[in-house]
Amino acid sequence: MKTIKVGLIGTGYIGLVHLEMLRRLGVVEIAAVADTNAGLAQAAAGKFGIGKVYDGAEALIADGEVEVVHNCAPNNVHFEISAAAIRAGKELLSEKPLALDSRESAELLELATKHGTLTAVDFCYRYYPVVQEAAARARRGDLGEVRAFVGHFLQDWLFYETDYTWRLDPKVAGRANVVADLGSHWFDLVQFITGQKIVEVMAELHTCLPKRRKPKGGVLSFGAGAAGETEEVAITLDDYASLFLKLENGARGSFTTCQAAAGRKVDLEIQVFGSKESYAWSHVHPNALWIGHREKANEVFYESSQLQTEGTRKYATLPTGHPIGYHDAVFNLFRDYYEALAAKRAGNATNANFPDFRVGHDMMCVIDAAVESDKTGRWAAVRR
Amino acid sequence: MKTIKVGLIGTGYIGLVHLEMLRRLGVVEIAAVADTNAGLAQAAAGKFGIGKVYDGAEALIADGEVEVVHNCAPNNVHFEISAAAIRAGKELLSEKPLALDSRESAELLELATKHGTLTAVDFCYRYYPVVQEAAARARRGDLGEVRAFVGHFLQDWLFYETDYTWRLDPKVAGRANVVADLGSHWFDLVQFITGQKIVEVMAELHTCLPKRRKPKGGVLSFGAGAAGETEEVAITLDDYASLFLKLENGARGSFTTCQAAAGRKVDLEIQVFGSKESYAWSHVHPNALWIGHREKANEVFYESSQLQTEGTRKYATLPTGHPIGYHDAVFNLFRDYYEALAAKRAGNATNANFPDFRVGHDMMCVIDAAVESDKTGRWAAVRR
Amino acid sequence: MKTIKVGLIGTGYIGLVHLEMLRRLGVVEIAAVADTNAGLAQAAAGKFGIGKVYDGAEALIADGEVEVVHNCAPNNVHFEISAAAIRAGKELLSEKPLALDSRESAELLELATKHGTLTAVDFCYRYYPVVQEAAARARRGDLGEVRAFVGHFLQDWLFYETDYTWRLDPKVAGRANVVADLGSHWFDLVQFITGQKIVEVMAELHTCLPKRRKPKGGVLSFGAGAAGETEEVAITLDDYASLFLKLENGARGSFTTCQAAAGRKVDLEIQVFGSKESYAWSHVHPNALWIGHREKANEVFYESSQLQTEGTRKYATLPTGHPIGYHDAVFNLFRDYYEALAAKRAGNATNANFPDFRVGHDMMCVIDAAVESDKTGRWAAVRR
Amino acid sequence: MKTIKVGLIGTGYIGLVHLEMLRRLGVVEIAAVADTNAGLAQAAAGKFGIGKVYDGAEALIADGEVEVVHNCAPNNVHFEISAAAIRAGKELLSEKPLALDSRESAELLELATKHGTLTAVDFCYRYYPVVQEAAARARRGDLGEVRAFVGHFLQDWLFYETDYTWRLDPKVAGRANVVADLGSHWFDLVQFITGQKIVEVMAELHTCLPKRRKPKGGVLSFGAGAAGETEEVAITLDDYASLFLKLENGARGSFTTCQAAAGRKVDLEIQVFGSKESYAWSHVHPNALWIGHREKANEVFYESSQLQTEGTRKYATLPTGHPIGYHDAVFNLFRDYYEALAAKRAGNATNANFPDFRVGHDMMCVIDAAVESDKTGRWAAVRR
Repeated sequence: MKTIKVGLIGTGYIGLVHLEMLRRLGVVEIAAVADTNAGLAQAAAGKFGIGKVYDGAEALIADGEVEVVHNCAPNNVHFEISAAAIRAGKELLSEKPLALDSRESAELLELATKHGTLTAVDFCYRYYPVVQEAAARARRGDLGEVRAFVGHFLQDWLFYETDYTWRLDPKVAGRANVVADLGSHWFDLVQFITGQKIVEVMAELHTCLPKRRKPKGGVLSFGAGAAGETEEVAITLDDYASLFLKLENGARGSFTTCQAAAGRKVDLEIQVFGSKESYAWSHVHPNALWIGHREKANEVFYESSQLQTEGTRKYATLPTGHPIGYHDAVFNLFRDYYEALAAKRAGNATNANFPDFRVGHDMMCVIDAAVESDKTGRWAAVRR
Repeated sequence: MKTIKVGLIGTGYIGLVHLEMLRRLGVVEIAAVADTNAGLAQAAAGKFGIGKVYDGAEALIADGEVEVVHNCAPNNVHFEISAAAIRAGKELLSEKPLALDSRESAELLELATKHGTLTAVDFCYRYYPVVQEAAARARRGDLGEVRAFVGHFLQDWLFYETDYTWRLDPKVAGRANVVADLGSHWFDLVQFITGQKIVEVMAELHTCLPKRRKPKGGVLSFGAGAAGETEEVAITLDDYASLFLKLENGARGSFTTCQAAAGRKVDLEIQVFGSKESYAWSHVHPNALWIGHREKANEVFYESSQLQTEGTRKYATLPTGHPIGYHDAVFNLFRDYYEALAAKRAGNATNANFPDFRVGHDMMCVIDAAVESDKTGRWAAVRR
Repeated sequence: MKTIKVGLIGTGYIGLVHLEMLRRLGVVEIAAVADTNAGLAQAAAGKFGIGKVYDGAEALIADGEVEVVHNCAPNNVHFEISAAAIRAGKELLSEKPLALDSRESAELLELATKHGTLTAVDFCYRYYPVVQEAAARARRGDLGEVRAFVGHFLQDWLFYETDYTWRLDPKVAGRANVVADLGSHWFDLVQFITGQKIVEVMAELHTCLPKRRKPKGGVLSFGAGAAGETEEVAITLDDYASLFLKLENGARGSFTTCQAAAGRKVDLEIQVFGSKESYAWSHVHPNALWIGHREKANEVFYESSQLQTEGTRKYATLPTGHPIGYHDAVFNLFRDYYEALAAKRAGNATNANFPDFRVGHDMMCVIDAAVESDKTGRWAAVRR
Repeated sequence: MKTIKVGLIGTGYIGLVHLEMLRRLGVVEIAAVADTNAGLAQAAAGKFGIGKVYDGAEALIADGEVEVVHNCAPNNVHFEISAAAIRAGKELLSEKPLALDSRESAELLELATKHGTLTAVDFCYRYYPVVQEAAARARRGDLGEVRAFVGHFLQDWLFYETDYTWRLDPKVAGRANVVADLGSHWFDLVQFITGQKIVEVMAELHTCLPKRRKPKGGVLSFGAGAAGETEEVAITLDDYASLFLKLENGARGSFTTCQAAAGRKVDLEIQVFGSKESYAWSHVHPNALWIGHREKANEVFYESSQLQTEGTRKYATLPTGHPIGYHDAVFNLFRDYYEALAAKRAGNATNANFPDFRVGHDMMCVIDAAVESDKTGRWAAVRR
């Protein structure tokens, strides 16, 4: 089989995860990497035996051998890179958020549609096997009508005043921090599991730590505390957000997120209450789906290549009971994307269900509505 | 030791819990019970060998032997009974909510202050040993400054359209259902653990099931489904509510409650995030307190008469590891109340910390603010 | 209704639990307490307003008003007291173990049978609602044929060399410590849930801490560390034991117990694997029963007065989701016993299922077999 | 960097896991695969773009390009293949068990020592980050002296009579099934965490299902139930085993394993009790290590590239809180092995800690002692 040539832009933490998971796919060859930090790119290339290294996105996009671009650059250049890649005729898998606001993401979506690009955005949490199972059960009617939902996404990596990240800088991160970075994953799960769009939000964005110490040198995501000099900076973006949400069918929900919650690491939890049963899932123990009942005992469904519904079985990539991790969720998304790509090339239809730029744009619209609601102190409609 | 004579009004489910827990106290004698449902009162008296049975509150309050009144009647007569008991010079322990609104509860509080009544309100969840422990740790500074808090209180006993209760009838329950019934417990926990008042709320009250089948005969709380005839009634009170909350120090939080959440029974969960550590507690496994840290492993503190702080040790009434249940929480509150009563009679000061009518009134003010916010779609201040 | 007069012997920790739980029963009046430690007895009587206090078992047994005796004295006087109580025509509820060995317990059983005594032994763990549920499900065939079982009972109150108890002294405790004290509870659960007798055991008894510091004054169970002088003593009884067990039908199981397991408090866990489904129960979260399946999702059954099977519903004494604790388990056992006593007096048959002296003797036979097996290094039959 | 050429023998379930995880390593190139089932080998090669496919081990071993052999063939040919690979000068990573008995494994160990082969055996469970953490803490003295340990390894894939596997056939699997297949993993964890050898065992091997339906065609591990014809076969190997174990320092432990435990999938649990603290780990939620204390709250340590001890941090391959799965554990082992290989080639010393053939042989000795003990009904020494 002919391999597919991939070029990856942005070799920070998440870029390396992409590279490792791409290598698990037999059909893919990583042809090139690019990063404005040349040392990072060089190190990644060395580690994985990648032939070409570029010091910028432009050069990689110009490389004719590259068929698919993975956009793992910081938020503020997502738009520019994705737009260029689409125009250059590349297929495109982007990290979230798609862009800095919904105006940009709308433009990307339009551009991708025009060029027939096969797009994806890395909302990987939906690719844990039991999250797929919850969605499949809801789709076949087990959940009944969704009535309510609730959850949170809590972390503690911004707990100390000495914790700093470019995500807190509006120039790089856009108009929101945590509601965009973590919220978007959770909103995607709500829509994916319930099959309903979020149509209206009431949001409160808040800054728990209004002053922080910023390293005078730069910082990497999730990096160890820099030892160097720091300066005090005022923080205006949110490290806490809470939202009320309405779905198309009138169902209500609420969501809270915070990155200063000591002891919570990647603690995403979602509960969905339907007219027939309920689901609860926590990323802390990501292989168990809780299924709630009124008239009988509740169930705990552990990921299972034997017991999952037909369509979701393939995401439980190991015999029942061998735990799936974060890497596997990312891998599952990539596998769906590259299968769809193979189908596209073969001229076949595909019913793959991975999140594409329509989903990515949708999340930007929800975030924009949240920012607007926070400003006005009123509910805001999600304008798509 | 001279025993204290108690009269209890309202011999439904919670009244029976009171009676059993009162009997565990050696110093108390239950002198009389009253209920407008004479059969219920008679049965309770028979079960516990209680001498006097009244068919109404008035007669019991008029009984000179009765020193302390337990008010376990429905919400809509709380005010009237409590006011009469105070005026008659009784000591008073009331079920929550204190009254139908904060105007009534303010009046009760004023009356009790004037008469020097020793009052208590049954916010029993704070009496699980590890909840006391969380509050004690916060009070001595372990938590640091509270920054954020989040939680829920979920049940499923109103899951079906055929589930009906007087709590859904504004004439008996007042202006709110779930935000009052379940919310008040949670708000009390927030204030008790953090030591901070809730000063402002943004609330959304919602009715998941706008139509229900009401039994043409009456219904008891938590009773089995009535077999008789039913009629369709429109429901206007909330079976779902979500709130944003602000504390005195500016900390933000959110809370969601629903009684149509299949599989959730008495699922109260609260997480409090401070500048030094975090606490999480779930009523589903009520003997474990999670203590979160950024720089070291998280802790799980199990109730312990050995390991708890000095002041809270007495609430862990058994050797470490023997689980405490709901009955014991109620018992712990009663014990504190009756110790304070003994101290009062002996002319001693007491530093007991049980929730009194100031706390009960406080909760009414929060609920009133929630109802107001829901109407206006705006934040509402809690007016005390 | 005429109340039943109870006399309790032994007012240490477990005696006080008996007193409090007896008071929850409406039909019972505690007429007298006795303890060789006069101060303890006096304190208990004062706390609960008990009229008569004796400084020894004999005098209490001689009291004609006492109808039922609760034997809460130390192990080494269980036999003597129980035998005297039976001969005096009292009804009898004893703490476990029944006696120091199976020869004594056989004699008690014979004596009780001869006198028609209504006996009970306080194996209270089976009285958590979901343990009853497991047994009821097994009895109606849900479990299928039991194939295997496994579990442990771990504590840490003998973790330090400075921890000492009379249970480690063969003169007071008999021939075994932990396998008798904790093992007997677990063996009772196995037989109760499976409905099968333990017929053969292979046991290893071991002493993790062969030297301890014994207070020169006395010690109370679960008491805080004594501050006084200590002396080194050699420990010969087991603080660790592990067993293989066979049931009547050939099913195999294993059990391990240890009282030097740091961090484990009252950590009893049992798993039973049948040919149709499995059960697992842990005393750490005692209200949840895990039900395992091969062909579908596992279930977690939370105690429920609504969902439990008909016969076990009454043990879930509160509306679904209000957690039951250790006190309630003891209370449930007492309630069954006193209902059977009321039936006996009314001349009615009773199908109550509480553990009586046959069960108590059975456990002594298993313990004796364990001690024998440990000595020979061979399997030993349980001789009943 | 020059890549290392790998040849893999046996392309069933576990072989495919090896291939995917090898690909995540940048330095490795999979040069060839071999399987007597040509279709399987061909499919694997196609999936991962592997150049050479052999229909047997011999040819692959004869391939001069292959530097490292991964032995993923069935148990009964482990010895023959490994011996041939060593003799051919290959480096060698083998699936467990090393061979059919300790005589064979001793021979392999001797052969590997003679040839200076860098060997590894796939005891992957120790490569979850928090298992490494437990061992590192024990090694630096946090655990104190180990006193006792307990655990189980439960599965349900042999629950039905219609479940059949070559592991139940003594001709292919050797003298034991579950005690070898699952027990060896658990024994390795005990020795790895405590740093103590198992020196003596008392074992009971048992067959819960003495008759099974064997497909007349062949069967694959963990495969879906075959639809074809079956025949009844008598099963003589163990599907249940229970053991008492002694460590060098006299510490006692017990272990139970069963493959007919409905609802248990890959449920490995181990608890280790030391004189200073305790550890508990469950494969069901593999990223949490429980650390037990007597004098303070217990801890739950979640895998963390920030909080783990220096030497184990690298196994937590993602930012704290991103769950690690089974694939990552295998990957961690491979990475250690190939780093050691790179060091060997560079002539550098390595302090890598992966399980080599000494460990593999050790486990065979424990299994042989278990089989012997079961036959004699007596304790058996582990002869190394």
